[in-house]
Amino acid sequence: MNAVTETAHLTQRSYEIPRTMKAWVLGDPDQLSFVEKPVPQPGPAEVLVRIDAIAVCATDLEIIHKGPPAMIEGGLPFNKNFTPGHEYMGTVVKLGEGVDEYRIGDRVAVEVHAGCGRCERCREGMYTSCLNYGKNYGDVKKGHRANGFTTDGGFTQYAVNSVNTLAHVPNDMSDEEATLIVTAGTAMYGLDVTAGLVAGQSVVVMGPGPIGLMGVGVAKALGASEVILTGTRDNRLEMGRKLGADFTVNVTKEDAVAKVREYTHGGAHYVLECSGAPNAVNDAANMLRRGGRICLAAFPGQPVPIDVAALVRNNIYLYGIRGEGRSATHRAAALMAQKRFDAKLIHTHTFPLEEVPTALKYARERIDDAIKVVVKIGHPEGC
Amino acid sequence: MNAVTETAHLTQRSYEIPRTMKAWVLGDPDQLSFVEKPVPQPGPAEVLVRIDAIAVCATDLEIIHKGPPAMIEGGLPFNKNFTPGHEYMGTVVKLGEGVDEYRIGDRVAVEVHAGCGRCERCREGMYTSCLNYGKNYGDVKKGHRANGFTTDGGFTQYAVNSVNTLAHVPNDMSDEEATLIVTAGTAMYGLDVTAGLVAGQSVVVMGPGPIGLMGVGVAKALGASEVILTGTRDNRLEMGRKLGADFTVNVTKEDAVAKVREYTHGGAHYVLECSGAPNAVNDAANMLRRGGRICLAAFPGQPVPIDVAALVRNNIYLYGIRGEGRSATHRAAALMAQKRFDAKLIHTHTFPLEEVPTALKYARERIDDAIKVVVKIGHPEGC
Amino acid sequence: MNAVTETAHLTQRSYEIPRTMKAWVLGDPDQLSFVEKPVPQPGPAEVLVRIDAIAVCATDLEIIHKGPPAMIEGGLPFNKNFTPGHEYMGTVVKLGEGVDEYRIGDRVAVEVHAGCGRCERCREGMYTSCLNYGKNYGDVKKGHRANGFTTDGGFTQYAVNSVNTLAHVPNDMSDEEATLIVTAGTAMYGLDVTAGLVAGQSVVVMGPGPIGLMGVGVAKALGASEVILTGTRDNRLEMGRKLGADFTVNVTKEDAVAKVREYTHGGAHYVLECSGAPNAVNDAANMLRRGGRICLAAFPGQPVPIDVAALVRNNIYLYGIRGEGRSATHRAAALMAQKRFDAKLIHTHTFPLEEVPTALKYARERIDDAIKVVVKIGHPEGC
Amino acid sequence: MNAVTETAHLTQRSYEIPRTMKAWVLGDPDQLSFVEKPVPQPGPAEVLVRIDAIAVCATDLEIIHKGPPAMIEGGLPFNKNFTPGHEYMGTVVKLGEGVDEYRIGDRVAVEVHAGCGRCERCREGMYTSCLNYGKNYGDVKKGHRANGFTTDGGFTQYAVNSVNTLAHVPNDMSDEEATLIVTAGTAMYGLDVTAGLVAGQSVVVMGPGPIGLMGVGVAKALGASEVILTGTRDNRLEMGRKLGADFTVNVTKEDAVAKVREYTHGGAHYVLECSGAPNAVNDAANMLRRGGRICLAAFPGQPVPIDVAALVRNNIYLYGIRGEGRSATHRAAALMAQKRFDAKLIHTHTFPLEEVPTALKYARERIDDAIKVVVKIGHPEGC
Repeated sequence: MNAVTETAHLTQRSYEIPRTMKAWVLGDPDQLSFVEKPVPQPGPAEVLVRIDAIAVCATDLEIIHKGPPAMIEGGLPFNKNFTPGHEYMGTVVKLGEGVDEYRIGDRVAVEVHAGCGRCERCREGMYTSCLNYGKNYGDVKKGHRANGFTTDGGFTQYAVNSVNTLAHVPNDMSDEEATLIVTAGTAMYGLDVTAGLVAGQSVVVMGPGPIGLMGVGVAKALGASEVILTGTRDNRLEMGRKLGADFTVNVTKEDAVAKVREYTHGGAHYVLECSGAPNAVNDAANMLRRGGRICLAAFPGQPVPIDVAALVRNNIYLYGIRGEGRSATHRAAALMAQKRFDAKLIHTHTFPLEEVPTALKYARERIDDAIKVVVKIGHPEGC
Repeated sequence: MNAVTETAHLTQRSYEIPRTMKAWVLGDPDQLSFVEKPVPQPGPAEVLVRIDAIAVCATDLEIIHKGPPAMIEGGLPFNKNFTPGHEYMGTVVKLGEGVDEYRIGDRVAVEVHAGCGRCERCREGMYTSCLNYGKNYGDVKKGHRANGFTTDGGFTQYAVNSVNTLAHVPNDMSDEEATLIVTAGTAMYGLDVTAGLVAGQSVVVMGPGPIGLMGVGVAKALGASEVILTGTRDNRLEMGRKLGADFTVNVTKEDAVAKVREYTHGGAHYVLECSGAPNAVNDAANMLRRGGRICLAAFPGQPVPIDVAALVRNNIYLYGIRGEGRSATHRAAALMAQKRFDAKLIHTHTFPLEEVPTALKYARERIDDAIKVVVKIGHPEGC
Repeated sequence: MNAVTETAHLTQRSYEIPRTMKAWVLGDPDQLSFVEKPVPQPGPAEVLVRIDAIAVCATDLEIIHKGPPAMIEGGLPFNKNFTPGHEYMGTVVKLGEGVDEYRIGDRVAVEVHAGCGRCERCREGMYTSCLNYGKNYGDVKKGHRANGFTTDGGFTQYAVNSVNTLAHVPNDMSDEEATLIVTAGTAMYGLDVTAGLVAGQSVVVMGPGPIGLMGVGVAKALGASEVILTGTRDNRLEMGRKLGADFTVNVTKEDAVAKVREYTHGGAHYVLECSGAPNAVNDAANMLRRGGRICLAAFPGQPVPIDVAALVRNNIYLYGIRGEGRSATHRAAALMAQKRFDAKLIHTHTFPLEEVPTALKYARERIDDAIKVVVKIGHPEGC
Repeated sequence: MNAVTETAHLTQRSYEIPRTMKAWVLGDPDQLSFVEKPVPQPGPAEVLVRIDAIAVCATDLEIIHKGPPAMIEGGLPFNKNFTPGHEYMGTVVKLGEGVDEYRIGDRVAVEVHAGCGRCERCREGMYTSCLNYGKNYGDVKKGHRANGFTTDGGFTQYAVNSVNTLAHVPNDMSDEEATLIVTAGTAMYGLDVTAGLVAGQSVVVMGPGPIGLMGVGVAKALGASEVILTGTRDNRLEMGRKLGADFTVNVTKEDAVAKVREYTHGGAHYVLECSGAPNAVNDAANMLRRGGRICLAAFPGQPVPIDVAALVRNNIYLYGIRGEGRSATHRAAALMAQKRFDAKLIHTHTFPLEEVPTALKYARERIDDAIKVVVKIGHPEGC
């Protein structure tokens, strides 16, 4: 750690904040370097977060390979000293002007999107669909931030965050588990938008990746009567059972549509599609009873044939979702704080900050059946 | 008219109701015969409607050719003495038990769906997605009716209707115009579900068929700021302008996506898709600003490639709609009664009941640029 | 049991159904007699329920004393051979025409309201606010039923019920507990209408009566972060803690508004008012943060002074609720089946059918701190 | 005009902006002085508006007399050089950093509330109920602004405004009419929250003040079938008829509840309460059919007796509203731009800036039957 230049002596604790920090930055596509960068300073309505742990998301791999999927303005992040990574948690070590929502020493989980607060979407509360996405640098600053997408992320030691992207982490939750709050928040958001009140209703989750598995946990926590998980790998499906799935279907062995219709006595109420499989939308439509709804939390890389007629005839609604809006991370954090499902089950591997490339490799290649790979960032005593 | 067997002497007027009536019935696919059938009797919560006019819908052509598109239970209607036709209006001439919502002599327009009132969907108000669709005959009667789809429709002189499918027709509205209420109701329903409050927002209508043209009228009546109609035929687009479209785009001459983005300064709020064109969903998604919404009121006959990623990345919601739910026909009738748009513009041809096959031919082949072809049904004085 | 006249030999089981049954009927106000009545016959969309248990509701006492609170049409129930009681459960022993939703032998809990299915409110899913309330007898039959309010209720051996008022009872739930489903359903409905997604939010429940206590259980089951129960009796508050309340406030000892504001760090999100106390609305408004919402599930007998200005300035919404709409009993039953809260805690006393007057007295006078008094109805083997 | 110190040479036009301006400021309660103040500078996401016209609102009179009604934090505005007035419009003459939503020369109407963008309410789009209300000065700046309530308002020549509070004014709309946009926006917001889709439904407006009269215009523009205005003065009711009311009731001559129930065939769907009369809530509840809804846009000065039982038994919802949220001013501006109702009718008097006290007196005392009194502010050529 470099020379300490500043000491925070606020409410309860104080942290020595170094002037520079270690950070992974993106050069050309797929090239990451471990460099020394200045520790950033929080502005109004922002805090400085000392990062304690960060999980690898599949989107990180994509960003490192080809840039953020929804980047529209602001240009791609290559060779701009950009630090990726967005599923992080840590400790508040410095407050920007006007911040009293958090105190020094608070443990926080971080969500991705801070809307501009001034566009039509932000004004109606849809901040993850901010129309000024990416406009936080260059000539026109609108205040939008997407951590690890358009502003620096978390494969480093410190990051600045809008107070809008933070959620409290309870004392008895580990750093590793807290990195999963944003994943659970995305699943929660999908259920919020698509389903609302799920108690006593049937929810199919397609795809037992991290969002899907958290979707199982959240749906069951909210009282869904039948939670059915579909996927291709038995060990993932087994994990889904531990998280609360009442039924699982291995689509390589069984007809998922038929099984869902059987388990739900004629068709499910909701499908949370997290697989990105080419026929997922059609399968989802066929799993539903008339008037059912589909949340799209994943997608195939190419256009795929969809039977639009089935959607119209059966009054199906589809909801493409971005991120973890409607303060869903707060709801997810609350359920996790109440021990409603065991999110830690999906955490499989841990690496130190120096080994981010290895962590990414484990996540990309699913080495050793990796699901959530967490990078744990140590800090010297008092920092 | 046959021997009169019954006379209604109720509240204000009395009608002589014959024992039998002339009706078109469906034999094999595409075969219609003009026969004599018994006049049906209204049961509890039903009335007998003397049909005064009926418009031809594209769905009628499909039903006559291959059965109702969404028929699931109850079997196909061929060779069952089934009378098609659902966009009708008429006069209440007899009341079933317990009916006081309508009086003898009331002029009424008719919507298609009467839900069973007991399934999960009906209980939540989504009666056009009734889970007991079609179950009104055979061994299990659940009370669902879909006029001209699963129960006898309107290419005849009289029809029984649930009070749930009726809307009052104002005195100064012609029979012909009143047949268009259900079409406007479908467009209204699409806007209700998808958009809600459209005042000051931008609505694209794709496809200037009857529903699309009524969608233009309704959207403008509700205060949409830019209503943009896209299509392939200039005369239809011109009609859209008369119904309130601020802009029209002939997709054979211009890039509709680019024009919409220009007219809406970056993307529309809503798209009402009424074209069924193969690329319609993708085009719609590209016309929208982030967080926009698409109503699917039409669909291509085959599965089509759809860029699901664009839906997810841009937080697009799609709403497949069935029929004209949420009492939308009542809202449409109210706007038409208030002369908010000139629905009559889309009525192009009129034929008598005896010439239903010709009316269908005009509608099917768009002879003489037919849009809405209306069949007018005369009745003897006092019947 | 009288002479058996009919035997049901359907799907799985058969029950011998007597021709007459024992029933409590209402004479003059506050006069109940135990008489022999014909066992009613289920019509279309109805079943005959053999009543196994029924709980006493405060509203029963009111109905017996002065008629149903919301009765508008149809006249009061005195001296009409009317059987009160609405919180009952039992066994399906006979199916009306067209019923396949339930089978002979199914255990069911019963909710109060079956809407007419044809009024504006029923058409939009608000069946507990049916505009044809009470119109199920006399000259105009509209099909509305409110068990124990406008149609015969459950202080007897058998009752006819619309399939719309039934919810399945799981095998491992006792009869006594199942009578509480409708109470929990009312609390759930209040939370549905008022709050929706409560995970991570704060809910105050005012008044630890049966609905309030079930409200505590439901709110906590759905993940509310702080559930605060206010009341006047410590033993009731203690029961609230067992059902999931994080905090309780005895309003005779503490300033409830101040405590709520303290526990919620500045104001609660929602108040479920179940006390009917004269100052409850004002207190609730003061407990809330700006933009908060109040559900009114109880009310004082007389008009009370309310500070309307506080509601407007703080953007407070109030929701008066009737009954247990939006299929909330199904959601409540699902949570209870999942053992999310221990509804049985509020069941304090049990009496046989013959002792209904004693049961009512215990409930009215809260003898022995009675909360839920249940009447258990035995039946001979095979009936 | 004082020495010009700055010239804007931006997109289309340039304005000479003086260093100081004339402004009315509040001393002790009810004391206004006409002083010279510095012209404020717009910060990020703000513009400088040259005020061209401002209407007097009843709330202005209250603020001048006793401070803003909902002020909670930040202290009262007396003797702080505070300029009241919030219903203003004008011309954008300078852009703050990052502003591209508006251009120099744009004519704009102004709404009151700019939320902090970071509290729970702002994050869900309820910015008029911002939990950081008033926190834009002192030690904790959160960014909330309420023009003329907690930050300087419009009885002056220039004002700084967040881009969030602006709506475009069409070229063919007069300055005077444009001051009414925010009033219409409040009525629109009330209808949005309470009623949503009003086409074909019945809306009662109680109280023919400015908000009530605009409520009549908006409700009719959106297709309400019966719009009924109640009040005490025939000339105001007559104005309501010109704005679209189908029926009016002079409550001093007729029983308003009875007339409403007659005109609506059994009860209205919605009541927009703008009278603040002591019995208004009870009357409103009695005017409604079961399941109806009341918007509270006015309130009596003291607590009033309310029959809570009637609200619960009839499933009535009440919505206290603050300001003009959900971007309702944009919808109102759109309807006014489309000439859907003649807002100008309620503009009765005009005074110059120097005569603000006279304007306030006319408004307060309703001299010459004043409804909307507008102050018109002239500017030298090029300023």
